[in-house]
Amino acid sequence: MEEERTEAWWARRAWALLSAVRERAPLVQCITNLVSMDIAANALTAAGASPAMLHCLREIPDFTPRCDAVCINVGTLSEEWLPSMRAAASAGRPWVLDPVAVAASGFRMEACLELLALRPAVVRGNASEILALAARSDSSSSSFKGVDSSHDSGEALQAAKALARSSGAVIAVSGAVDFITDGEQVISASNGVAMMQKITATGCAVTALIAAFVGADPSDALAAAASALAIFGLAGEIGMECAKGPASLRMHLIDALYGLDEQTVTSAVKIALVP
Amino acid sequence: MEEERTEAWWARRAWALLSAVRERAPLVQCITNLVSMDIAANALTAAGASPAMLHCLREIPDFTPRCDAVCINVGTLSEEWLPSMRAAASAGRPWVLDPVAVAASGFRMEACLELLALRPAVVRGNASEILALAARSDSSSSSFKGVDSSHDSGEALQAAKALARSSGAVIAVSGAVDFITDGEQVISASNGVAMMQKITATGCAVTALIAAFVGADPSDALAAAASALAIFGLAGEIGMECAKGPASLRMHLIDALYGLDEQTVTSAVKIALVP
Amino acid sequence: MEEERTEAWWARRAWALLSAVRERAPLVQCITNLVSMDIAANALTAAGASPAMLHCLREIPDFTPRCDAVCINVGTLSEEWLPSMRAAASAGRPWVLDPVAVAASGFRMEACLELLALRPAVVRGNASEILALAARSDSSSSSFKGVDSSHDSGEALQAAKALARSSGAVIAVSGAVDFITDGEQVISASNGVAMMQKITATGCAVTALIAAFVGADPSDALAAAASALAIFGLAGEIGMECAKGPASLRMHLIDALYGLDEQTVTSAVKIALVP
Repeated sequence: MEEERTEAWWARRAWALLSAVRERAPLVQCITNLVSMDIAANALTAAGASPAMLHCLREIPDFTPRCDAVCINVGTLSEEWLPSMRAAASAGRPWVLDPVAVAASGFRMEACLELLALRPAVVRGNASEILALAARSDSSSSSFKGVDSSHDSGEALQAAKALARSSGAVIAVSGAVDFITDGEQVISASNGVAMMQKITATGCAVTALIAAFVGADPSDALAAAASALAIFGLAGEIGMECAKGPASLRMHLIDALYGLDEQTVTSAVKIALVP
Repeated sequence: MEEERTEAWWARRAWALLSAVRERAPLVQCITNLVSMDIAANALTAAGASPAMLHCLREIPDFTPRCDAVCINVGTLSEEWLPSMRAAASAGRPWVLDPVAVAASGFRMEACLELLALRPAVVRGNASEILALAARSDSSSSSFKGVDSSHDSGEALQAAKALARSSGAVIAVSGAVDFITDGEQVISASNGVAMMQKITATGCAVTALIAAFVGADPSDALAAAASALAIFGLAGEIGMECAKGPASLRMHLIDALYGLDEQTVTSAVKIALVP
Repeated sequence: MEEERTEAWWARRAWALLSAVRERAPLVQCITNLVSMDIAANALTAAGASPAMLHCLREIPDFTPRCDAVCINVGTLSEEWLPSMRAAASAGRPWVLDPVAVAASGFRMEACLELLALRPAVVRGNASEILALAARSDSSSSSFKGVDSSHDSGEALQAAKALARSSGAVIAVSGAVDFITDGEQVISASNGVAMMQKITATGCAVTALIAAFVGADPSDALAAAASALAIFGLAGEIGMECAKGPASLRMHLIDALYGLDEQTVTSAVKIALVP
């Protein structure tokens, strides 16, 4: 008989995964945008992972196969870096895609579709990004025309399920409530505070954290993504207790992520199966 | 009869412009230096703007026309990025130039002169940068030979006025007192604390903020530049109340920028017409 | 009769060098990795130096000769930036090399060996990096095969001495205790706290600080490197008194570095000759 997956079960799962990150210190290569380098690396380190911001095409054959996971983020995409993104995504390691502002240009959309075809384990974006990507990914559909940052993560859920089925990736839609789906199951993660959106690159940082969780336990990308999102959000909740604005929240969030203990995680993580 | 532009009038104007930034959340594309990415993006977000650090030449035709303003900063100039700077400056949106260390090399000076010819709405620099740019911009003059960081912003004022007239841009000279001129009027902005100069890239951050203010109300670049400078300085003054050094000042400044209210802005902003 | 170099003598030397940095504000060009830009520039500024993150090959002939020192860090090495590193290292200014993750790829190892041949004043790395570099640098030896981050700085000491002799550079090995050697003398610097390793790019920041100390007094790279390491570690110790985690430690460390006074430095710096 399968154990029932209650919120308490998920919270213990999230703790087990954070503990795995701390024990195994997964090496996470990040080919990420220039704005997020600092916060993403510090979030990974605070969580117990080992970040490596290495983007040189010539180094990827030697280095990427040694990594536990790869994070690719197109926030400051360039023609120079795209070949490295392709190569790292093709190196046989589990990897996570952050399609930042995918609708910003045709070049960026094509790059993301190309990367999506290289089978990421997880794609994390906000509702607008997932809607845009799903609309273009499903060429037979005309239902996802709107790309507007006012979409919330619930609205993007049907698009996310379709995208998960067509791409084979777990799709995580960030928002006030995060939704994570493999195309069949849908899980919600409800930690976090609104002010986190006033810190630049928190989305990029949590995508990197998802890569660390996938690297520590590649067997269940759905649980890894949900756990990373919930734990990052929980660190934000704890950080918010001392914060006076977005800059102090950023500091307290990283401190809290570093200090999370079993009691806190298992009692406060809010992950649930969406019926 | 025109309303008298007292310090109180200017302070109300600054508050109106900050409110416009918060309401309209102008999309500000920054092609800025690698050191300033984090603080510039976080300052923009804290002020209510929407930053986009996007520098890829292929994306500019699709993306830049959608922006409310553009910020171009040559701090870590490269041959690869210069064409993107040219393209973004030519995309028909109001834009702001930060000629960081313009006298560092002949290549950088030529790049800044070329960008200056693309008609920025505002140029913001320190006294040495404005003096150097004015000296080269005015080829008939031999009066601005000195380029030395010991120049203060008052010394650069005549150069700034000449540069404003020849370029058509509002010129903002940062210093203990900031001077802003369109070649005719001169305005001073006197907020700020000395320790802000001990935080890397505060100058770059305030240039990005000027772009946000111009993006929220493109009708009066002189008022936008003066207001952004005064408000950023005021956030520094408030931040200084809790700071123990440059790193805590940086945090408290961003928090303060996020939290500024009408009472504080209208009572503490110090902008005045220089007779 | 030569004065005896007690711990108190070294602490006064460290204070003299920090004072020289504050007085002379050495201009330090950093061609450093994208992750470390912010913390390295802020650490340099807090210490009193003048950082310049300038990496454009076309600017180096004009700019680098005016610098007091150069810091080259291969953390996010690329084919585009390597020629700039070569050029800056060859510009006749004292310079410091940080061979971050030198064993990450063959390309990176070759780049570091090539840079090493351009005679840095100081090379600073962790034990694994120095062991890897020493093993490849000494082609006749087969004794330094292991490259593992579990090596501590003491284990790397023999390798560091050999590397110092073959390269002519002072070699600094960071760890719980730092060792600095010119191939003959060995000095230890014992300040610092373990949590500094949980802040991304503290190693890169201290390498930049070594460049500032070398730039302020190029006559004794051994003393400059030991003093910079001890003073940065001492700032970490002071910062740790108020820190709740790695992000607040980062802030308090920079604040402490800015605020260090003679009494604190001369009483708490721990540098000693290793017999």
